[in-house]
Amino acid sequence: MSFSMDNGYNLWLNYSKIDDASLLETYRNQLQTVFVTDGGATMDVIKRELDRGLGGLLQQEVRFEPNPTFQNQLIVSRYAELGEDLRTLVDPADLTSEGYFIRTIENKKHRMVLITAQTDIGLLYGTFHFLRILQMHQALDGLQVMESPKVDIRMLNHWDNLDRTVERGYAGFSIWNWHTLPDYIDQRYIDYARANASIGINGTALTNVNANGLVLTPHYLEKVKALADVFRPYGLKVYLTARFSAPIEIGGLKTADPLDADVIQWWKDKTKEIYDLIPDFGGFLVKANSEGQPGPQNYGRTHLDGANLLADALKPHEGVVIWRAFVYSEHDDTDRAKQAYSEFVPDDGKYRDNVLIQVKNGPIDFQPREPFHPMFGAMPKTPLMMEFQITKEYLGFATHLVYLPKLFEEVLRSDTYQKGKGSTVAKVVDGSLNHKKVTGMAGVANIGTDANWTGHPFGQADWYGFGRLAWDPYLDSGTIAEEWLRCTFTNNENFVGPVKKMMLESREAVVNYMNPLGLHHMFDTGHHYGPGPWVDNLSRPEWNPVYYHKADDEGIGFDRTKTGSDALSQYAPELGEKFGNLETCPEEYLLWFHHLPWDYQLKNGRTLWDGLGIKYQQGVDQVGDMIKTWEDMKPFVDEYRHNQVSMLLGIQLKEAKWWRDACMLYFQTYSKMDFPKEMEKPENTLEHYKSLQFPFAPGIRPTWN
Amino acid sequence: MSFSMDNGYNLWLNYSKIDDASLLETYRNQLQTVFVTDGGATMDVIKRELDRGLGGLLQQEVRFEPNPTFQNQLIVSRYAELGEDLRTLVDPADLTSEGYFIRTIENKKHRMVLITAQTDIGLLYGTFHFLRILQMHQALDGLQVMESPKVDIRMLNHWDNLDRTVERGYAGFSIWNWHTLPDYIDQRYIDYARANASIGINGTALTNVNANGLVLTPHYLEKVKALADVFRPYGLKVYLTARFSAPIEIGGLKTADPLDADVIQWWKDKTKEIYDLIPDFGGFLVKANSEGQPGPQNYGRTHLDGANLLADALKPHEGVVIWRAFVYSEHDDTDRAKQAYSEFVPDDGKYRDNVLIQVKNGPIDFQPREPFHPMFGAMPKTPLMMEFQITKEYLGFATHLVYLPKLFEEVLRSDTYQKGKGSTVAKVVDGSLNHKKVTGMAGVANIGTDANWTGHPFGQADWYGFGRLAWDPYLDSGTIAEEWLRCTFTNNENFVGPVKKMMLESREAVVNYMNPLGLHHMFDTGHHYGPGPWVDNLSRPEWNPVYYHKADDEGIGFDRTKTGSDALSQYAPELGEKFGNLETCPEEYLLWFHHLPWDYQLKNGRTLWDGLGIKYQQGVDQVGDMIKTWEDMKPFVDEYRHNQVSMLLGIQLKEAKWWRDACMLYFQTYSKMDFPKEMEKPENTLEHYKSLQFPFAPGIRPTWN
Repeated sequence: MSFSMDNGYNLWLNYSKIDDASLLETYRNQLQTVFVTDGGATMDVIKRELDRGLGGLLQQEVRFEPNPTFQNQLIVSRYAELGEDLRTLVDPADLTSEGYFIRTIENKKHRMVLITAQTDIGLLYGTFHFLRILQMHQALDGLQVMESPKVDIRMLNHWDNLDRTVERGYAGFSIWNWHTLPDYIDQRYIDYARANASIGINGTALTNVNANGLVLTPHYLEKVKALADVFRPYGLKVYLTARFSAPIEIGGLKTADPLDADVIQWWKDKTKEIYDLIPDFGGFLVKANSEGQPGPQNYGRTHLDGANLLADALKPHEGVVIWRAFVYSEHDDTDRAKQAYSEFVPDDGKYRDNVLIQVKNGPIDFQPREPFHPMFGAMPKTPLMMEFQITKEYLGFATHLVYLPKLFEEVLRSDTYQKGKGSTVAKVVDGSLNHKKVTGMAGVANIGTDANWTGHPFGQADWYGFGRLAWDPYLDSGTIAEEWLRCTFTNNENFVGPVKKMMLESREAVVNYMNPLGLHHMFDTGHHYGPGPWVDNLSRPEWNPVYYHKADDEGIGFDRTKTGSDALSQYAPELGEKFGNLETCPEEYLLWFHHLPWDYQLKNGRTLWDGLGIKYQQGVDQVGDMIKTWEDMKPFVDEYRHNQVSMLLGIQLKEAKWWRDACMLYFQTYSKMDFPKEMEKPENTLEHYKSLQFPFAPGIRPTWN
Repeated sequence: MSFSMDNGYNLWLNYSKIDDASLLETYRNQLQTVFVTDGGATMDVIKRELDRGLGGLLQQEVRFEPNPTFQNQLIVSRYAELGEDLRTLVDPADLTSEGYFIRTIENKKHRMVLITAQTDIGLLYGTFHFLRILQMHQALDGLQVMESPKVDIRMLNHWDNLDRTVERGYAGFSIWNWHTLPDYIDQRYIDYARANASIGINGTALTNVNANGLVLTPHYLEKVKALADVFRPYGLKVYLTARFSAPIEIGGLKTADPLDADVIQWWKDKTKEIYDLIPDFGGFLVKANSEGQPGPQNYGRTHLDGANLLADALKPHEGVVIWRAFVYSEHDDTDRAKQAYSEFVPDDGKYRDNVLIQVKNGPIDFQPREPFHPMFGAMPKTPLMMEFQITKEYLGFATHLVYLPKLFEEVLRSDTYQKGKGSTVAKVVDGSLNHKKVTGMAGVANIGTDANWTGHPFGQADWYGFGRLAWDPYLDSGTIAEEWLRCTFTNNENFVGPVKKMMLESREAVVNYMNPLGLHHMFDTGHHYGPGPWVDNLSRPEWNPVYYHKADDEGIGFDRTKTGSDALSQYAPELGEKFGNLETCPEEYLLWFHHLPWDYQLKNGRTLWDGLGIKYQQGVDQVGDMIKTWEDMKPFVDEYRHNQVSMLLGIQLKEAKWWRDACMLYFQTYSKMDFPKEMEKPENTLEHYKSLQFPFAPGIRPTWN
């Protein structure tokens, strides 16, 4: 029918019919029947997914056999239950508890595809991988896959409040309907777990790090338990954010001092109460003494004291504490970029072994581009967990097409030099650099109640890509984009090629039209929607954009070398030299580390001022190119999603121009120079841009917090 | 596939294949081709709807012909464009501008179904009616339908805030995504307009009556215009709530005094600005001097002054003012039930002719049961618009199955006796009692971002039923239920019969388990979730449940006869006698009008105390019966929706018991009598029920308002 349309709810699990007739015939022939080992909720999930996946892809009833026939069959079976002859074909020693083998076996006795693993969850992951192979139209002949995740804790952080608003959420509201839980199980909870399992995500922190203690009361724990019960068969563990002052607010104690005996006991009891309800509860995620949140420092204690308090409570239950390093203080007038390092690094080695320190990818705050956080590699005795932001607080909300795995990849591949060349951030995160016992990667979710989960259809790629990189931090962002495109839209090469290119270039586009040449945090106050480089009236200096760009009559940029804040000294000496030297500092970090005159000469011979204008224009032009590319894709995409993306690209172009015009007009009040000839004339006056107000922009922190 | 499921997004416009093979054959034969008159956006909408509707129902490609063949054809044509021979078959004088004819014509020249109307909107309404006939599997032979709406303004009131929270919204958040408007047009906007047009709703007030002036600024008006442009082809006009103090807040004036010349000019200019953008803008909906909202009384003026101020501004553009009568004052210590009447009735006849006074169905506030509002029939010279609440603020949020058209019907059929027997509320509302020039009915929407729009699948029936009753206030609620069931689920009589019965009984069930025998407003504070009959500590007396039930050691109930507040005197003398006399007062209004001793003897011989407990128990038992009925419906409903409703009925039963136990335990502290033997033992103590707190219950008014 002409009205059929894809609202995107199914994400990359589209399972649409294989449109290559000969391939379809081959698959149908190779997968005539299915045998799945019996037993347990996860095995039921596998069966349902195969019924749905194979049913959709092959457009025929899926025939499940009660016994293996080994002939033109898909077999999903635990390793321990395989016959001796099949066991010899796979080596379980290579598998972690979440890993799996997929092999096509053709010999005298067998003509089959085998998925095997040590655990049911491994089988589920293998099943999703197998379905992806079909979705990507890859041949099954000679198939041999061995996969184990390289990172232990692969989790989403939901900044979801109990009133269902989502801090920095741009895809509607929280999918957790606390009011109707525990008795009403929304189908979304199940599909959320499916989607996560399909990319190997195994943990979810349900609540905002700006936490509310109420979630730890029995009334809410009953609701959390209901979600945990839904998620369990999918290998997805639940974590909660622990408000440090909860012993006072919900426990009735007079203090939350981490060394107080009653406080220690309260957390022990509370933790036990949680595990009695949720035996596989993951642990606590904590934001303490940061942006107004309570913490151990309220009692003259340290982050170490706070983290170890909760670690001791969790230890008997095998839970972990994930303690965020995102701290900066209004009482500390050193460069905000330096403060987390100074606070945490000295205590390396003193944390309990079930504590992970969760560090944002860069030293400021999820900017379009930052150098990697100097803590990575600087705490060899402590597990450092990566915190990426999947929701686009500073990258165009859910209206801009910006493919984030490209950003994640850049961070993961950055070399810390902490153990010589090749000491990449990925090696810190996966623990291989310092042989960590437990490792993790977190992504701040971009998921909401919008029909397609993420608002922008391409936002789904960021969720997908985060999961894939958490599983394997060495994956290539281009490969991931291609997987996602094929599973979500079509395998048509005339679509996959151009759109993949567009995605890979989109991240540099947003850097160009928002924060080029190392500029950062020039976002308007509070909601971070649109440019506000002129903002200078907030109570804390480091909340003002002027703190970061430091534009003045002489020039622009933040001097973080020895002549400035010396934040650079927190990096390995090799990087200190590279970034500190104007000859070798990459232009993308130029104004991050240096304050330079407006007429400073860039590598291309143009002045810094001209270079700035040219970059802004380039960003706008890149969005124009994206619009052209997408227009050409009309034949390959359903009308619904094509139209969605077209409208959103229109907004992106409008806002890219807004950024260019607002920033360049503002900086011109200092540079007093003409715009470079390459740059289009601004569409409005500086006064106009300064007058814009958005009191109801989405994602603002609610007043009660 | 086993995973196929209906998430309810398509509402009653399901258009699923006609499953009766012979009927399908007949339809296919009778509707071989379609001819639709050319021209204009509404005609395009009609074509698209027929393509979708007939395509789905008949499961075949719809063949549109460029010219009428009159043979086995559906013809949708303006009356003016019909040939003389067809014109003689219909009489246009009987049609209002929104009315339509549908006729099956079989004669020598013709063998066709004709839909005709004076206007394109009439054709659209006729098209939807025709599709409903097919959805209900009705024969086309001899079909002869002539329909015109009995009420002019048939509108939804959205209590939606600019931050997308919805006051008294229980189906997620506002479907208006103000942030991405005007450039991003969500498919929901289009489907919202379709759904409304399908039941004849022709107006929508987008914003909360607790209004924010910002919606009248250019930044937001541009967004409103985008919605109006989407809605226009569907005959749906946009209205806005006007904050009375907007001239100060967004206009920069020092006053909002309705007699001030600058204020008068400001509203004239603002109104013109709106009409320049939206030429068919409907008008303003105003809540003034009510529950903290600003209004003319702030300046020593009257509601009359305020309403006429806006009416004069709207008059040149043919817009209307809808002024709400929901007012009660903290400075007025008379019975709250009396205040609106006292405030408005004396000014009957003084309002401009483009003012409608919008009156809630009852004198208090959308309770499970109230007698009709005494203003109906008491202002013969002023159009009184009905305000129903479709969202279930006081009827179980979106978790209880309560079929509201049953309540609406009860109100509309109530006899005001204002012009003798038979002066029903319906006749006041449709204007026939006093020959009104303009008439209207509003429903406070239950629509939100939930996949199925209304949260509870059966909440869709309330939206549907409201629309149908606004079109024709004399329709029977059972007929409406049946229409909705057939279009939404199935025509299987084994389903339609029992479920219709369940729906019709559901309203009395909620009265029984919440507020039996005329009790009212015993809801917990603020959020109105669950029972709070004990609440007595709010600053204004009429905000406390104890104000309404007046339980004491002697008895219970609000004496509104001459010996009490005398609110009864606001009704016609016939009703004063009937309700005032204990012999003739219907038991459902007993404690609304009378304070009676605990041992007062009811008609069945039991004491009032026993009767109360028996009613509460009966409500609980009725929910138990609904659960049984629904369980039996499993064969007829898709798993998704069957499971949804089952879970929700589980919550309803739990909460029905909660109401029974909390209220009866509380009242027992006064009656000091044993529970009647028919009543189950309470599950918890009164202290437990009093201790329950729900700070994040949905639908609370945000703090900024």
